[in-house]
Amino acid sequence: MKGVNAARVIAAPEDHLPEALLRLQRRNFLRGSVAASALVASTGAAAQTTSAALVPPWTRSLGAPVVTTGYGMPSKHEANVQRRQSPGLTPQPQASISFTPLQNLFGIITPSGVHFERHHSGMPEVDPQQHRLMIHGLVKRPLMLTMDDVMRFPSVSRIHFIECGANGGMEWANVAVPTVQYTHGMIACSEFTGVLLSTLLDEAGFDRAKGKFVLAEGADGSALTRTIPMEFALADVMVVYGQNGEMLRPENGYPLRLLVPGVQGVSSVKWLRRLEVGDKPWNTREESLHYIDLLPDGMHRQYSGVQEVKSVITMPSGGQRLVGKGYFEITGLAWSGRGRVKRVDVSVDGGRNWQTARLQEPVLTKALSRFRIDWNWDGAPALLQSRAVDETGHVQPNIHQLRAVRGVRSIYHNNAVQTWRVQPDGEVWNVQVA
Amino acid sequence: MKGVNAARVIAAPEDHLPEALLRLQRRNFLRGSVAASALVASTGAAAQTTSAALVPPWTRSLGAPVVTTGYGMPSKHEANVQRRQSPGLTPQPQASISFTPLQNLFGIITPSGVHFERHHSGMPEVDPQQHRLMIHGLVKRPLMLTMDDVMRFPSVSRIHFIECGANGGMEWANVAVPTVQYTHGMIACSEFTGVLLSTLLDEAGFDRAKGKFVLAEGADGSALTRTIPMEFALADVMVVYGQNGEMLRPENGYPLRLLVPGVQGVSSVKWLRRLEVGDKPWNTREESLHYIDLLPDGMHRQYSGVQEVKSVITMPSGGQRLVGKGYFEITGLAWSGRGRVKRVDVSVDGGRNWQTARLQEPVLTKALSRFRIDWNWDGAPALLQSRAVDETGHVQPNIHQLRAVRGVRSIYHNNAVQTWRVQPDGEVWNVQVA
Repeated sequence: MKGVNAARVIAAPEDHLPEALLRLQRRNFLRGSVAASALVASTGAAAQTTSAALVPPWTRSLGAPVVTTGYGMPSKHEANVQRRQSPGLTPQPQASISFTPLQNLFGIITPSGVHFERHHSGMPEVDPQQHRLMIHGLVKRPLMLTMDDVMRFPSVSRIHFIECGANGGMEWANVAVPTVQYTHGMIACSEFTGVLLSTLLDEAGFDRAKGKFVLAEGADGSALTRTIPMEFALADVMVVYGQNGEMLRPENGYPLRLLVPGVQGVSSVKWLRRLEVGDKPWNTREESLHYIDLLPDGMHRQYSGVQEVKSVITMPSGGQRLVGKGYFEITGLAWSGRGRVKRVDVSVDGGRNWQTARLQEPVLTKALSRFRIDWNWDGAPALLQSRAVDETGHVQPNIHQLRAVRGVRSIYHNNAVQTWRVQPDGEVWNVQVA
Repeated sequence: MKGVNAARVIAAPEDHLPEALLRLQRRNFLRGSVAASALVASTGAAAQTTSAALVPPWTRSLGAPVVTTGYGMPSKHEANVQRRQSPGLTPQPQASISFTPLQNLFGIITPSGVHFERHHSGMPEVDPQQHRLMIHGLVKRPLMLTMDDVMRFPSVSRIHFIECGANGGMEWANVAVPTVQYTHGMIACSEFTGVLLSTLLDEAGFDRAKGKFVLAEGADGSALTRTIPMEFALADVMVVYGQNGEMLRPENGYPLRLLVPGVQGVSSVKWLRRLEVGDKPWNTREESLHYIDLLPDGMHRQYSGVQEVKSVITMPSGGQRLVGKGYFEITGLAWSGRGRVKRVDVSVDGGRNWQTARLQEPVLTKALSRFRIDWNWDGAPALLQSRAVDETGHVQPNIHQLRAVRGVRSIYHNNAVQTWRVQPDGEVWNVQVA
C-alpha cells in the first residue's frame, strides 16, 4: 500500500451514448494532477501554510443554511451518476428500460434515485388515496384494501435484490455491451418494507387445498400480470410499500408492489392492484409470449423464474481506464436467487488462476453481496473475471457452458461469468473470451 | 388480525410548525373513507366491475417514459416527508439542525434525502477536485491525499447510525417536544463506504508509542475539530466517501467525512480535510465549550462521546392519532453506541408491564434496529414506552434515573425512555410521566 498517489480508476464518462463510452476520457486524472500541483507545493510544507490564497473559498465563507433545498439531492459534481437508456434497445421509451450505474456505486444498497426502471406501459401516476388492492379468487373473504388498510397489518423489512430476467440479455450472442451499466445494470438492491403475502392470504382465508397459484396484476396501462406459485407466495413474498426507509418511488411501484425475492423482476408486479388465488397458472401474455427461454431445439421454456447465482466486477469495468500500474482494489457484486452467496473467486488471467475475494458482512439471503480483492497490476494485459458460488452449491457458469445448454437465442437468465479485458494502456473493454 | 378496515394511524401533519402539529388532522382518514365508498359499491361485486368509469385514469392511459426525471425523487404525494427545523431552537439557520422525520420512515436505512443536518457554519460547497486530506503530526510520512488517492485504498462498507449528542436535549427538563421528529430526529442510519482510518494511519506510519489521539478537522467555515482517542481510531473509525450506495450528500460531508461509529455525531467530522496524530487531547472549542455535560454539582464532564443504549417508539408517536380501537403494530428504533441491541421491551401502561418486541434481522452493531410488537388497543388511555438493552448489558434508563445522576441542566446524552400518551380519542401526546 505504498505510494498511493496516482489518480484512481476513471469513472464512466457522463455521456450516455455507448459510442461515446468508448472514447475514454482522461478528464478526472488531468484535473486532479493540475489541482494537486497548484494547491500544494510540497506535502511537508502544506501543514504550515496559512496564506488565504491557499485556503479554499468554502472555508473562508458561511455555508448554506439547513433544509434550504427541501428533499436532499446528490452534489452537482455527481450528476454523471444516473440511470441511462441503451439507445436503440427499445422502440418506445414507455416500454423500455433504464439501467443502474453500477460502476459508480458502493456497498450493497442501491440509491432509490438510480434504481433501474422497467415499464411495460410507462410509469403511471397513481393516487394513493384512490388506490385499492383486491384479493379474491379461491378465498373465503374477498378483500378490498386501501393503502391505510395494507399499512396497518404487521410488517417486515428485508434487504433483497430485484433483477430483471433480461439482465445481460444482449450478451447471449456476441454483442459486447461497453459498460457494466448496460451489461448488468438491470439489478438493484433495497431494504423493502411491507406485509408478508402469507399474512394477507391468511386474512382472506385462502383455500389451502385448491389454492396453488396467485395471480398478481398491476394498475398501470399494461395491467401486467404474473403467476406466482403458492410455495413462493407463502415463503417470503411481500406486498411492499417501503423502499430504503421511505415510500416506494413512483417508477418502482408507488404506492404498492409485489416483491418475489430471488425471482426475475417481472414477477414483482409494480402498482399492485389485484391478487387472485387459483388452482393453475394463468398463462398470461407476459408469461407465454415474453419472459420465456428459447432453447436450441426451438422449444420455449416457461415459468423459469429463479435468478441463478451470478456476479460481476464493477470496478475496474468496461469504459474505465486504469491510470498507471500498481495497487487497485477489484470490487463487484454477487447474488443468488436461491439464498446467500457463499464465495466469490476472482481471476485476473481469464480463468486460469482464481483467488477468493472478501465478502462484505453481513451476507444476506437473496440480496446483493459486495466482494473486494487486492490486485497489483503489472501493466500487462489482464482478463478480469469473478465467479460466485451460492449456499446451495450452484456455481456461476461461463458463457460457453451456458450456451452449450441454452444456445444463443435466449434473452433471459444469462448468469454467465463476465470478462473485462485490461489493455496495456489501462483501458478496460468488454470481451467475450475464447 | 380480523377486521382490518379502519384507516391506519394518521401520519404527522405536513405543516412544520410545532403549534400546528398539535391540531390533529383527520384529513387522511376522511379522504380514505370517501374514496372507498365512491370507488367500490361492495367488495364482492368489484371483481366483476369493468365499467370504464371505475377504472382509474392511470390504468386507462400511457404512463411516463423511463429516465425523464433524471435522478429519481419521491412521489409528490409524499412531500410531507421532509427534514424540519425546530422554530426558535437556534438563532441562525447556518449553525442549526434539521430533524429526520422518523415518524414516516420504515426499516433501518434512512433515506439520504431526509438524513438530519447539523452545521456549525453552514453547508459548504466543496469541489472534490480541489479537496485534500492531510495526515500529519506524529507520523513518519505525512500525506496529502486527493479524493482519487483516498478512493484507491482498500475499502469497507458498513451500516452504522449517526446520532447528534444533543438528540433529546430539550427533554432534560420538562419541555415536551410534540413529535418524534423533534424529540429523536437527530439520528439516521446509513450504509457507509470508505477506508478504515487504521489503513491511512498505517500508510502514514504513525507513532505507535506516542500517538494516543487523532485530531479531525473539517473544511467548512467553522473548521470544526474533534479529538478521537487512538483506541477508537484503530478499532472501527472510517474515512467515508460513500453513503447508501452513492457519494456522500453535500449536507453530510461531501466529498469526505469521518465516521466514528457509536460516538456522538460531532466527532464524525464532515468535509474532512485534516487528521493529526498527537500525544494528548487538543481541548478545542467544540470539546471544551460545547458537547460537554453540565452535572448537578456544577462540574462539566468532557469527552463523553459514546451514545448509550436508547430506543423510541416511532409509531404511534406524538402528533399522530389512532383512528378507532383494535389492532395496531407498535414499531420503533433502538440502538447502542456500544454494540448490538440485545432486546427491546415495550410497555403500554407506563412501565408497569413489559413485553418483548420482535427485532428486525440482522441486528447490526452500532446500527439502528427496528422493533415491532402487536397491540390491540381497547380505547382506554395508554402510556407507550420502549426500553432497550444492549449486548454489553446496559439498560436504557427512565428519565428519573437519568436526572438523579445527571441533573436537569444537561443538553447532551439523554438516552431516557420516551413516553407517548394515547388519549381515549386516539390522540398521541408527548408526556413526562410521573
